[in-house]
Amino acid sequence: MPGTPSGWGLANLPFGVASVPGQPGPRVVVAHGQHAVDLHAAASAGVVDTGVDPQVFAAPSLNRLLAEGRDSWRTVRSTVADALGAREPLPGDVLVPLEQLSMLRPVAVGDYVDGYGGIHHATNMGRLLRPGSEPLAPNWRRMPVAYHGRAGTVVVSGHPVRRPWGQVGDGDGARLVPAARLDIELEVGFVVGTGNPLGCPVSVDRAADHIFGVVLLNDWSARDVQAYESQPLGPFLGKSFATSISAWVVTVDALAPYLVHGLAAHQQPAPAPYLRTEDPWVPDLRLEVLLQSRAMAASGTPPAVISRVRYAEAMYWSMAQQLAHATVNGASTRPGDLFGSGTASGPDPRTQGGSLLEVTWGGEQPIELPGGERRSFLEDGDTVVLRGRCEADGRGGRREAVALGDVVGTVVPASPGTPTR
Amino acid sequence: MPGTPSGWGLANLPFGVASVPGQPGPRVVVAHGQHAVDLHAAASAGVVDTGVDPQVFAAPSLNRLLAEGRDSWRTVRSTVADALGAREPLPGDVLVPLEQLSMLRPVAVGDYVDGYGGIHHATNMGRLLRPGSEPLAPNWRRMPVAYHGRAGTVVVSGHPVRRPWGQVGDGDGARLVPAARLDIELEVGFVVGTGNPLGCPVSVDRAADHIFGVVLLNDWSARDVQAYESQPLGPFLGKSFATSISAWVVTVDALAPYLVHGLAAHQQPAPAPYLRTEDPWVPDLRLEVLLQSRAMAASGTPPAVISRVRYAEAMYWSMAQQLAHATVNGASTRPGDLFGSGTASGPDPRTQGGSLLEVTWGGEQPIELPGGERRSFLEDGDTVVLRGRCEADGRGGRREAVALGDVVGTVVPASPGTPTR
Repeated sequence: MPGTPSGWGLANLPFGVASVPGQPGPRVVVAHGQHAVDLHAAASAGVVDTGVDPQVFAAPSLNRLLAEGRDSWRTVRSTVADALGAREPLPGDVLVPLEQLSMLRPVAVGDYVDGYGGIHHATNMGRLLRPGSEPLAPNWRRMPVAYHGRAGTVVVSGHPVRRPWGQVGDGDGARLVPAARLDIELEVGFVVGTGNPLGCPVSVDRAADHIFGVVLLNDWSARDVQAYESQPLGPFLGKSFATSISAWVVTVDALAPYLVHGLAAHQQPAPAPYLRTEDPWVPDLRLEVLLQSRAMAASGTPPAVISRVRYAEAMYWSMAQQLAHATVNGASTRPGDLFGSGTASGPDPRTQGGSLLEVTWGGEQPIELPGGERRSFLEDGDTVVLRGRCEADGRGGRREAVALGDVVGTVVPASPGTPTR
Repeated sequence: MPGTPSGWGLANLPFGVASVPGQPGPRVVVAHGQHAVDLHAAASAGVVDTGVDPQVFAAPSLNRLLAEGRDSWRTVRSTVADALGAREPLPGDVLVPLEQLSMLRPVAVGDYVDGYGGIHHATNMGRLLRPGSEPLAPNWRRMPVAYHGRAGTVVVSGHPVRRPWGQVGDGDGARLVPAARLDIELEVGFVVGTGNPLGCPVSVDRAADHIFGVVLLNDWSARDVQAYESQPLGPFLGKSFATSISAWVVTVDALAPYLVHGLAAHQQPAPAPYLRTEDPWVPDLRLEVLLQSRAMAASGTPPAVISRVRYAEAMYWSMAQQLAHATVNGASTRPGDLFGSGTASGPDPRTQGGSLLEVTWGGEQPIELPGGERRSFLEDGDTVVLRGRCEADGRGGRREAVALGDVVGTVVPASPGTPTR
């Protein structure tokens, strides 16, 4: 979270989980400006009456709160807003400076599904990886193609990311090396609040009732590992070493004033009925990818923006369509399940690519960083920041800005050796 | 579990979780013959002193016991064996008839990884799906190829399996239909006991220390859905509607007398050092697939064996190699993580195929059931049973048979309608 409270006002009130000084275990917290409300302290002291058992807020994840259902989340959020807006300030053990918190992963992820719903990204990947053939597979405009990622390696913003080892193709054979083509993917994730039982699909028009909120998501990718392993069953070790998400989950309610009709409003061919909706909502997020090398950090040079993407112009498939599709076969979801949108890239890969693979066009057109360093893929010591916000109305309008939580990750070198026996 | 106690003696003692009549919540149980030991009742009464907090046994899954570590699992199992072998019979609330138990899913699955390590299966799939090209991808003999499946839809044996809806290709387009090519996959799964932290791979020679035990696994597959959706990211809805596992987890210790050196002892080319081992152990399991149609059940005809597979002759990649590979990039695992072997098929697809796709060779050579019905793929009302055991020595030897828990599932019709909006 940057030093400015812009985007962190009463219109936002994102949820997270943190270690709070002086408290024995993790707490559910709600951010407001430079502070956070410790919901357990607030509920226990009767400062905030949420109607929810205070023990739900003394938990290592938001999952118990999610399981309480949408009415409860809304009540908690509105009650906190009332208390923050009241004349009397909240007590010091309830309102804690953000800088004193140690943020934890906000949800215990049950299943993690990663999508592929960005049309420019999918097109670019097709051109790069399967040159000479139609870039989009026949299924791509018919369904929000996705796969399951590794839930156990979803980490919170700030967690270092170790360069993975992996087998890469080498002539007729392969060799085990630290991944050389380490990349990022700029994604928006959503967290399931209310799950659905086995055999009961979520309809596209009811999907919003099931979605608690939104995070930024960095789907770290080892391109060389991924390329060698992916036939015929898809990505595995090229992705499973780490996926970073925001510490703060911004609720769908907070994003409501910023929902627009995205590309899903103009899908051709029209998708199957279970994917059709008259309200193809998508949050109008402005996203940025920033990169800071070790040398830049040492010289005090701030992270440089290497890509800017307007989310609603990137995504062909919406969150609601993704959830409807993932459950149309009867699959269940659970509170805390995480869905990644797929990489969000704008039309121009050089300035709007959601991955370095696109920005540097397969590594062939390196970018130059402040200070003169060049990058095709990530080097050890590089820090990547994903940032996103819905902007306030330009002319004194009624909408406050709403920011997502930054996702920050620094690449640390591969382990010096891998186990042989 | 069949009516015979053969394979369920003191040499086995598999673990499960059950609802026990008169008890308020689920209990961890150990099977012996026609009975099960309620570990919570046993530990609370002091009949069995396991050294583990009895609350670990009053739990909805084995996960807390798994987290206690290998020494604890072993102590519990040997202590139970001692108590069962003692002169005094166990009290009635400790030793419960199996028929009184309602078996639950034994583990809360964190991540589910499904492999592709059966060489005859992978070869058959290549021939069926990519005719005219080399059946095995270049990576196949270099690494145990795998992908992540859906953990939240792993169900216990006995749970009905609803035929999924899904999009299938139709000329240039696609249509949403109940899957027509519903299939099974005969697999052996292993359950992680002790996990590994992020950044610390499991070495192939230490993998057995991390594996708690083994289940049978039916990786239900909608072939028509899978075929249309899988490019480029692999299987998704064609698999995610259900995966069935045994209610009983047979420990690696119980299988120890039956470990043999399988195909992994003769891998060519030699795999990368992190996959090499001088002890490529594999349990010498005899596996069977049985099928019973609704008509057969109505007429009292028992399930018919449609395939018999010797596991050690099916699997090119071992469990230890699979775990070493899945973590070589630094990915962590957790107690309760589930790994499927990939389909186990013998050399002859007609009589040793681990899937109907192989047995009926793409559906072109239907099989005939007792009573004259024919099957290419599964029909509604069909019940599939997976069965597996390590046989006792033939000539009065010292080894008792050890059986895995059957996996039973009956196909129920697709939901009459899918949500449109």
